[in-house]
Amino acid sequence: MISRVMSAELAEHAGQRVTIAGWVHRRRRLKSVSFLVVRDRAGLAQAVTEGDLPPEESVVEVTGTVAANPQAPGGFELVSPEVEVLAEPRVAPPFDLYRPVVGASLPTVLDHAPVALRHPLLRAPLEISAASAAGFRETLDGLGFTEIHTPKIVASATESGANVFGIDYFGRTAYLAQSPQFYKQTMVGVFERVYEVGPVFRAEPHDTVRHLAQYTSLDAELGFIRDHRDVMAVLREVVAGMLDSVRRRAAPALDLLEVALPEVPDEIPAIHFTEAQELTSSGEPDLAPAQERWLSEWAEKEHGSEFLFVTGYPMAKRPFYTHPDPARPGYSNGFDLLFRGMELVTGGQRLHRYADYTAALAAKNEETGPYRGYLQAFRYGMPPHGGFAMGLERWTARLTGAANIRESTAFPRDLNRLSP
Amino acid sequence: MISRVMSAELAEHAGQRVTIAGWVHRRRRLKSVSFLVVRDRAGLAQAVTEGDLPPEESVVEVTGTVAANPQAPGGFELVSPEVEVLAEPRVAPPFDLYRPVVGASLPTVLDHAPVALRHPLLRAPLEISAASAAGFRETLDGLGFTEIHTPKIVASATESGANVFGIDYFGRTAYLAQSPQFYKQTMVGVFERVYEVGPVFRAEPHDTVRHLAQYTSLDAELGFIRDHRDVMAVLREVVAGMLDSVRRRAAPALDLLEVALPEVPDEIPAIHFTEAQELTSSGEPDLAPAQERWLSEWAEKEHGSEFLFVTGYPMAKRPFYTHPDPARPGYSNGFDLLFRGMELVTGGQRLHRYADYTAALAAKNEETGPYRGYLQAFRYGMPPHGGFAMGLERWTARLTGAANIRESTAFPRDLNRLSP
Repeated sequence: MISRVMSAELAEHAGQRVTIAGWVHRRRRLKSVSFLVVRDRAGLAQAVTEGDLPPEESVVEVTGTVAANPQAPGGFELVSPEVEVLAEPRVAPPFDLYRPVVGASLPTVLDHAPVALRHPLLRAPLEISAASAAGFRETLDGLGFTEIHTPKIVASATESGANVFGIDYFGRTAYLAQSPQFYKQTMVGVFERVYEVGPVFRAEPHDTVRHLAQYTSLDAELGFIRDHRDVMAVLREVVAGMLDSVRRRAAPALDLLEVALPEVPDEIPAIHFTEAQELTSSGEPDLAPAQERWLSEWAEKEHGSEFLFVTGYPMAKRPFYTHPDPARPGYSNGFDLLFRGMELVTGGQRLHRYADYTAALAAKNEETGPYRGYLQAFRYGMPPHGGFAMGLERWTARLTGAANIRESTAFPRDLNRLSP
Repeated sequence: MISRVMSAELAEHAGQRVTIAGWVHRRRRLKSVSFLVVRDRAGLAQAVTEGDLPPEESVVEVTGTVAANPQAPGGFELVSPEVEVLAEPRVAPPFDLYRPVVGASLPTVLDHAPVALRHPLLRAPLEISAASAAGFRETLDGLGFTEIHTPKIVASATESGANVFGIDYFGRTAYLAQSPQFYKQTMVGVFERVYEVGPVFRAEPHDTVRHLAQYTSLDAELGFIRDHRDVMAVLREVVAGMLDSVRRRAAPALDLLEVALPEVPDEIPAIHFTEAQELTSSGEPDLAPAQERWLSEWAEKEHGSEFLFVTGYPMAKRPFYTHPDPARPGYSNGFDLLFRGMELVTGGQRLHRYADYTAALAAKNEETGPYRGYLQAFRYGMPPHGGFAMGLERWTARLTGAANIRESTAFPRDLNRLSP
């Protein structure tokens, strides 16, 4: 390995001659002296030089003596540097990566993602995303969950029927999985508690700021629950664990983006769907975005919580595998978790008896044939179970306050965008 | 949550009345007494009863008093039990899940995966797989790597040209990604060190025991290397970390499968491709499976190592982005890691200069157009870098000694199989 110290470690090497390596973040020529600011994965370091200044995004090794300078990043800089250029850029970046704000439109950023993401502000959401996924797994590992990897190519477009991508699968038509729902339920029969972090695919025909054709779904499912409230309790731990992980693992990104992380109440407030309808004076069988925003504000005022569970959504609005509320026919043991004005997580208790599945499908005039693989699990005995799914990009966008979900992923896929 | 103790915890509750929950693993009716063996995610527990014995795979809660019995699993059993059936199976499993060996052919197992995977022997490889992936991430997290999630839908079938699945992407043709290769290299420009655990897709037209149409690829890539040997050093740590994680997290699965984990030498022996050719008396520009097996045995005899690096594969046999060996034209800075007679990992140093990429593509008579997004990274300055990729299922199969890679994944996809 190139023997180097990281930019953030200069202080530990005061007076020593060391090598840093990274990209030329900025050249600054002053009257009597010049600065070369080098960016590495840990941050920025500055070298004071009288020699040549290679252009921005040159890849360099800089060997110099570490000297204190209160005005340098981290309070130390390299003096008497020797600069070796490992690779030269062929062209200048489409916008200045060293400026504190991003001086380019989102389409420009997305078209030039390979270089644009080097801007610390554009890289930061991806650091928060990585820390969040780590916290998701860490929390569930601690609760006895097992990680699974399920097929992304499926035989039938069963889960919603709409918005699926078709594939040519060895001459047959197959589909990209819209979620690991059926497989994670099935695996409750094997491991009781499972999770998956993986891509899901939605052929979303609308170009909106909150939809992607591929996103990373954080899925969990667990057996031997009483009802959906046990799922909500696990979700509360997961959200708290994700935030804790972000705090520990992505502190610089949080600082850079000036993100204030939410507190998670020991018990997240929960209201029933009918109560949400009353509060928002709605007679509709679902909550519109404006109502979700209103409810989020209400939870903040009323309960001091940026999180709010809405439970008991009407069965008519939930998928066929949803478990009804035994006490209130027509309402489900399903829930949404609202966060900062938007649905962040959908979850609930699922049916677990084979006869309930065949009845639910019959009620929707659906054949059981296309569901045969899935229904196998229930033919052989399944415990009461439930789970939830959260989009990693949506979570990150809500945390960072991104206006467009495309800022929460490196290489978004949508109706129009298939590269880079 | 159903208030229960796990099967493995009975000893801690001796004399107490507790509830366990799980599946009826086995009913045994003896002359004077009957046993109900319950399977939960932690193992097996036995209840001694005179009451009804629900059929195998019934989901039950059993409340009883914990009493010592040296012949019971774990040395304790439940006496005076009350049994509540939470869900009844509709049919008997296609083979007995309680027998110590699996009494069914692989096709039967795969056709009935939702229930077959409940067999402890069939579940165990998936536990080892989960522990391995956790160790992969844990090791790389500790080395300053950042997790990424990259597109699985790509615009062109560039990486190998062959064996790609086509998708209807909003009326255009797109392809399923065969690997995150281009994206992980690109992200070295952002984070220096990245990894991804995710599905990759190969339209493998042959039905073999070692290929899947979808598998989980463990990918890593790092910048600021001297050459491929730095990548090999990181890989050595990763393999050791994965094994350590399996030891810690999947000990019962190892016991059950009677798996002896390999030792990883501090430095894995490495031989150059030309040396491997001489040893195996081969003049071919690649190593055949028989030669890989021979070399693995040789490394074990000669170096006491179940792992062997073969370095310097001919450039002609490596992809266009491979970095040549500056000292030996025609040979590459690419390597394979052999393990137990088979290639387990492929890796190497990559080209990092834009001009080298355009030259490499020109030498293959390829246009740069389809590679534009990928080549962007190099236009803007990239450090010397390299990485590797390992198939999680192949790793698991090698560890467990599975004859068929389909035993290392829950729901395999291949030429003929698209469900369950």
